[in-house]
Amino acid sequence: MDERAALKLLAGKLPDAGDDAAVVDGLVITTDMLHETTDFPTGTERYTAGWRAVGASLSDVAAMGAKAVAAVAVYADAGFDRDELEAFVAGASDVCESVDARYVGGDLDTFAEFTATTTALGRTDDPVLRSGARPGDVLCVTGTLGRSGAALRLFEDGETERANDLFRFEPRVAAGRALAPYATAMMDSSDGLARSVHQLSEASDCGFSLDSDAVPVAESVREVAENEDDERALSLFFGEDFELVLTLPEDHVSAARKASPTPIFVVGTVTDSGVTMDGEPLPDRGYTHG
Amino acid sequence: MDERAALKLLAGKLPDAGDDAAVVDGLVITTDMLHETTDFPTGTERYTAGWRAVGASLSDVAAMGAKAVAAVAVYADAGFDRDELEAFVAGASDVCESVDARYVGGDLDTFAEFTATTTALGRTDDPVLRSGARPGDVLCVTGTLGRSGAALRLFEDGETERANDLFRFEPRVAAGRALAPYATAMMDSSDGLARSVHQLSEASDCGFSLDSDAVPVAESVREVAENEDDERALSLFFGEDFELVLTLPEDHVSAARKASPTPIFVVGTVTDSGVTMDGEPLPDRGYTHG
Repeated sequence: MDERAALKLLAGKLPDAGDDAAVVDGLVITTDMLHETTDFPTGTERYTAGWRAVGASLSDVAAMGAKAVAAVAVYADAGFDRDELEAFVAGASDVCESVDARYVGGDLDTFAEFTATTTALGRTDDPVLRSGARPGDVLCVTGTLGRSGAALRLFEDGETERANDLFRFEPRVAAGRALAPYATAMMDSSDGLARSVHQLSEASDCGFSLDSDAVPVAESVREVAENEDDERALSLFFGEDFELVLTLPEDHVSAARKASPTPIFVVGTVTDSGVTMDGEPLPDRGYTHG
Repeated sequence: MDERAALKLLAGKLPDAGDDAAVVDGLVITTDMLHETTDFPTGTERYTAGWRAVGASLSDVAAMGAKAVAAVAVYADAGFDRDELEAFVAGASDVCESVDARYVGGDLDTFAEFTATTTALGRTDDPVLRSGARPGDVLCVTGTLGRSGAALRLFEDGETERANDLFRFEPRVAAGRALAPYATAMMDSSDGLARSVHQLSEASDCGFSLDSDAVPVAESVREVAENEDDERALSLFFGEDFELVLTLPEDHVSAARKASPTPIFVVGTVTDSGVTMDGEPLPDRGYTHG
C-alpha cells in the first residue's frame, strides 16, 4: 500500500481525521514529521528548519480558520549540538510568535537522521472543512505560489541565504481567521495547487475550472524558472508553499478581500465535476510528502 | 551535549516546557517519539505498539492531573502494511477510549525504521507540577512497579503473548484526576522510580527518604527476577511503567486513597535534601530514553 492509499484507509477509520487538522471539542490539532533527507535541502539552516517545521503545522491550523494556540516539537538527531538546537528552538519560537501562538517545547530524541515532528494546536468553534465547496462558488488562493520550488532551485545553486529566506514562510493564520466567515471550503497548498484542488474536489464532491493566467506566481519563480513550462511546474505542482486554497460565494469576494491581511486571488470557479485548467484536464500531480 | 544536558538547556529557554506536559491556556500538551530498535522489542505486536506509544503520551497528561481530550500520531515506516497499520490504529484508539479521550488520527510518513510520534492533549485549569513537594509530605506511587522490565525479559524469552499483554499499560488518567486535589507534586514513572524521585527532588528543591520494603513490586517481576538484586533493578530503575509518582500531605493520604480508582502506596517521605533509600543514597539511574 502506498502512502496515499494508506491515508485513505485511515480516513475511513477515523472520521475526525482527513482534513488539514483534526477537530475535537472546540480544538484543532495537527501533526507532521519532516526529515533531513526529504524535507531540508543541503544548506537549510537549523533556524529555518525550526521555523518551517513548526510553520507547516501552524499552516494546517490556519487552513481550519482557527486561532493558533501553541506548538510542540520532537527534535531528533544523532547528537545534540548546542548552536543547532538553540537555532531550531529560536526558529520554532519566532514562527509561533508571528502568529500569536506559543512554542512550548516538546522532546528530544537520539536518532540517526535529523528529524522533526511538530504538532500545532488551535481553537475554533466553527472550523472550515474541505467539504463545503458548492458549484457556483469561486476558487481563491492567498499570496503567490512557487516560492518553495524557487527556494529549492536556489539551494541547488548554492544561494543558501536567499533560499533560507524563501523557505521561511508566514503561516496564514490571520488570513485564515479573517476568511473563515466567508469560506465554504479551505485547505493549505502544501501539496501544490493542482493536487489541493483535486483534494477539495474529492472532499466536496464537485469540480473546478481554473484559469492559468489568474494563478499568482511568486516573483522568485520568475527569477529561477527556465521557461514557461518550468514556471508552471513550480507554481502549480511543486507545492510546499503553505498558502490557503479556498472557495467562497462570488458575492463575498469583495468583503473577503477587505477582511484578509494577505491578498487573495480568484483563480477559478467551482463546477459540478472534473478538474480543468483553461479547458484541459489538470493532472492530479504534486508534491508527495516523504 | 548528551540528551539530558540538551533537555536542561531547553528547559531554561522554554519555561512552559520541562514538566511532564507543557501547560498553555487551560490545556496541557505533550509529545514523544518512539522507535522500533529502541522502544519496541522483537515480538511487539503493532496493536501493542499503538496502545503503548499513545499511552505514553496520555500518561504525561495523567501526570498533570488533567482530563485527557485527544491524541494524534505520526506513523512512519518503510512501507504500509494494511494489517499492521490497522492494528496500530486499533491499539491507539483503544487506549484513548480507556481514558475517555479520542484518537483523531495524524499523519503517515515513509521512513526507514518504524517510528511513532505521539501527541496527547488534556484540559485542566489547575495542573499539578513537579515543583510543589514540601518537606513533611509523603511520597506515593500508584499501582505496582516493574511491569515493563518484566515484559522485556519475557520478550527475550520468546513469551510474546504475555509480554505484549504486560506492555499494554493503563494510563493513570482517572487516578491523576482523582489525586490532583491532594497532590503537591506529581509526575509519571516513565524513567523509573529512582530517577523520577531525583527529578522531583530537583524540581521541588527538596530531598526524599524511601523505604525499600514499601515499594510495590509487580507480581510479574517476582516471576522473572533472578534474585533480589534483579527484582530491585527491575522495579526501581528500569522504568517505563507509567505509574504516577506523587507527594501529598500525610493527613490527606486516607482521603486520596479513597478517591483514587488505582491503589496508592506510601513509599517514603519528603525531606530537606538528599535522596536516600533505607538510609543509603539512591542512585540517579534509570531508563535513558533513546
